[in-house]
Amino acid sequence: MDDLTHIGPDGRARMVDVGAKADTERTAVATGIVQMAPATLQRALGRDTKKGDPIAIAELAGIMGAKRTSDLIPLCHPLPLTSVTVSIERDGEADNALRVTATAKTTGKTGVEMEALTAVSVACLTLYDMLKAVDKAMVISSVELIEKTGGKSGDYRKAPR
Amino acid sequence: MDDLTHIGPDGRARMVDVGAKADTERTAVATGIVQMAPATLQRALGRDTKKGDPIAIAELAGIMGAKRTSDLIPLCHPLPLTSVTVSIERDGEADNALRVTATAKTTGKTGVEMEALTAVSVACLTLYDMLKAVDKAMVISSVELIEKTGGKSGDYRKAPR
Amino acid sequence: MDDLTHIGPDGRARMVDVGAKADTERTAVATGIVQMAPATLQRALGRDTKKGDPIAIAELAGIMGAKRTSDLIPLCHPLPLTSVTVSIERDGEADNALRVTATAKTTGKTGVEMEALTAVSVACLTLYDMLKAVDKAMVISSVELIEKTGGKSGDYRKAPR
Amino acid sequence: MDDLTHIGPDGRARMVDVGAKADTERTAVATGIVQMAPATLQRALGRDTKKGDPIAIAELAGIMGAKRTSDLIPLCHPLPLTSVTVSIERDGEADNALRVTATAKTTGKTGVEMEALTAVSVACLTLYDMLKAVDKAMVISSVELIEKTGGKSGDYRKAPR
Amino acid sequence: MDDLTHIGPDGRARMVDVGAKADTERTAVATGIVQMAPATLQRALGRDTKKGDPIAIAELAGIMGAKRTSDLIPLCHPLPLTSVTVSIERDGEADNALRVTATAKTTGKTGVEMEALTAVSVACLTLYDMLKAVDKAMVISSVELIEKTGGKSGDYRKAPR
Amino acid sequence: MDDLTHIGPDGRARMVDVGAKADTERTAVATGIVQMAPATLQRALGRDTKKGDPIAIAELAGIMGAKRTSDLIPLCHPLPLTSVTVSIERDGEADNALRVTATAKTTGKTGVEMEALTAVSVACLTLYDMLKAVDKAMVISSVELIEKTGGKSGDYRKAPR
Repeated sequence: MDDLTHIGPDGRARMVDVGAKADTERTAVATGIVQMAPATLQRALGRDTKKGDPIAIAELAGIMGAKRTSDLIPLCHPLPLTSVTVSIERDGEADNALRVTATAKTTGKTGVEMEALTAVSVACLTLYDMLKAVDKAMVISSVELIEKTGGKSGDYRKAPR
Repeated sequence: MDDLTHIGPDGRARMVDVGAKADTERTAVATGIVQMAPATLQRALGRDTKKGDPIAIAELAGIMGAKRTSDLIPLCHPLPLTSVTVSIERDGEADNALRVTATAKTTGKTGVEMEALTAVSVACLTLYDMLKAVDKAMVISSVELIEKTGGKSGDYRKAPR
Repeated sequence: MDDLTHIGPDGRARMVDVGAKADTERTAVATGIVQMAPATLQRALGRDTKKGDPIAIAELAGIMGAKRTSDLIPLCHPLPLTSVTVSIERDGEADNALRVTATAKTTGKTGVEMEALTAVSVACLTLYDMLKAVDKAMVISSVELIEKTGGKSGDYRKAPR
Repeated sequence: MDDLTHIGPDGRARMVDVGAKADTERTAVATGIVQMAPATLQRALGRDTKKGDPIAIAELAGIMGAKRTSDLIPLCHPLPLTSVTVSIERDGEADNALRVTATAKTTGKTGVEMEALTAVSVACLTLYDMLKAVDKAMVISSVELIEKTGGKSGDYRKAPR
Repeated sequence: MDDLTHIGPDGRARMVDVGAKADTERTAVATGIVQMAPATLQRALGRDTKKGDPIAIAELAGIMGAKRTSDLIPLCHPLPLTSVTVSIERDGEADNALRVTATAKTTGKTGVEMEALTAVSVACLTLYDMLKAVDKAMVISSVELIEKTGGKSGDYRKAPR
Repeated sequence: MDDLTHIGPDGRARMVDVGAKADTERTAVATGIVQMAPATLQRALGRDTKKGDPIAIAELAGIMGAKRTSDLIPLCHPLPLTSVTVSIERDGEADNALRVTATAKTTGKTGVEMEALTAVSVACLTLYDMLKAVDKAMVISSVELIEKTGGKSGDYRKAPR
């Protein structure tokens, strides 16, 4: 088993040296869901501007959250994101849930998995915040990396469950 | 059904006016889990300083993340947290998972649910980041509010599943 | 003429001492406009979700910007905002312009004029950013304080021009 | 008319993908003015260190503000600024006004118009904050892009009014 | 010996609970010096506006740095500073050194020692940055708490050496 | 004597233009010490997880602080750090002191001296914060640049004292 790259041979946390890595295009896709009561889902999906749109706000918060990744995650490298998209839709599998999907890209020396996962997490938290006045029992679940491309370690695609 | 407090009568997003609310002590507890392969769990739990300690780093990141809540969540009020604790332990129910528990407190005009949930999410993301060199398939799940106290809307305690 | 409170008797910049001031409710309202070509205005006002909504994004950015005021303005006190609203509408006076109006409130020792003005400025900048693909000649103008209430120096209301 | 690049074909806000763009040198110049009472202008221009120097503080705040652009403007790409200058002088055209001029540069995949405009806005806000003890009626106006160079869309220079 | 308040009985880092503490006025004073070559000191002290003023910039950076304390120091509580001043003068004791003195105040539940020390450190770092083009060998020294007042633990005043 | 690069020919502060500089690998090493009472040192060095580990927390805070350098130091360029390490050990020379050593790296147009020095300063401040419950008289000293490599101005190595 490979050891943890964020921890040095002396056991100290470190921002691992990526200086010798090539600048390549890197992408990552992550998803997550927010499970909620049926009435909450209806409220969220009724996206007319008159009543306000929690989904659009959460998508925007996810994009902005991706830009904060290296502030939040102690050993993440700061990197110049070249693209972030976040979309939220009714989940096709879970009964009463919204699915958040985020894609992050950069041209750089290190991957953007954490940026995609952070975008998903912040979008999920924002959905919770926007809807909690009507439903405090919502649950954020299945936040996971779906695929990544680029970099020396090669591509990754999550095996279907 | 109550409508969403973060959205005004004209459908606009707003940071809702809490100026007339009393300053009371408020607490919130949230939890979440990170599911991982058995070998990953063993690595995380082997907390000797020689090999580095992803759990201690994630606990600290969760505390620091709580302080960023109003930066990340668009309509959250900034508030002076009086206490944040985050603890990560092997989960008692899931087979191979770490459970993150965060407690946030303030004396203020608005609740700290989002601070507790943000602490949990950032701690989970940090666990992912620390351990992803050995396991990219980890899943963050069951991020939810367990209880809150204080404030006009009264106490909340999640019903057992 | 009173001298500048942000500068001490020795000429040094300072965050002026407000410790002896009472905590009172304070509000401020500020406005500003973004002048643009007629076609740009039509695009901005056509707020259907299919084509995206620059106005809703700018309103949200203004609220979030208000929370960054003490980060941006060197001698501003950090303070716990209790409410921020930002609304953007077609301006009633200028021919082709959107008007941004922001209201900020706190219960504290110092006023929220800068928070309201920062909300307006960030909303105007975001409108520019959202619309600049079609119109780089837009102009941000008339960013000003309309009224403030609370605090020892008393209320202020801008004289009509 | 071109549509808005920050909004995708599905109407969602996005940080547009610039990964395929070349790294080129890009510059932007923006200006703005702060109109004030004659006595306020005299106070601001009397830049002796004994009485403190609002202009130097506002210039510095503008430079620091430029570095916050991607934090403030939701869909702005983070980018490594290679140069920022901000200068504030008595305006040659308006009767009682200070003119802020900001120049931002980067070598990157996307332009620095928003960085230059943000520097101007933050410098104007800081002038307001520094001088508001003597003049609350100041107005920030004419914040606009004067020129940009670099990038595929070519150079832009504002037509004289 | 008292144990460390930032570490709980279980050995975990925590933001210690100050919710039961009274809001009292609290102040802290910290100092530090930057030792430099004689020519560097002369350059720094020649504060004419024509050649730029590293000292005024460092004083301002110290004030702004104090507002970032709870972002930087993992277990610091966020708190609403009511006053920060930073002054830099030729040191009376060391031969070629500038002395930075910072005073921070709040009305709150926890002390402002870290805010004062952070202001000093950021001001010292900024002096280094401003002057490093002419002197890379400067040394930051003697950063220490001089006095604190307020709070249950009582006042503290450093014993003269 | 060279003049200060952060100040333009007109005496204005500026983020100096590095656009024409080549992207080269740059490193910097900085150190500092925290002097403390013998009992405090023993407490800090007793790094068992049961009683908590101030040293590991301070090392992590130093790494995170390095990422904040361009936020804190007014005229620092934002840059994509490729590596940061911070280690804290008992000092070999001073009697009762911990020595912090930080190494920062980037591939960019400007040096990382300030990032290394900021990492050291934030780590020292965090040690102070973690240990101040038992010792308020600690002193941060000898914060200095030990070496830098890369860039047109060439390598620098501090002369031994």
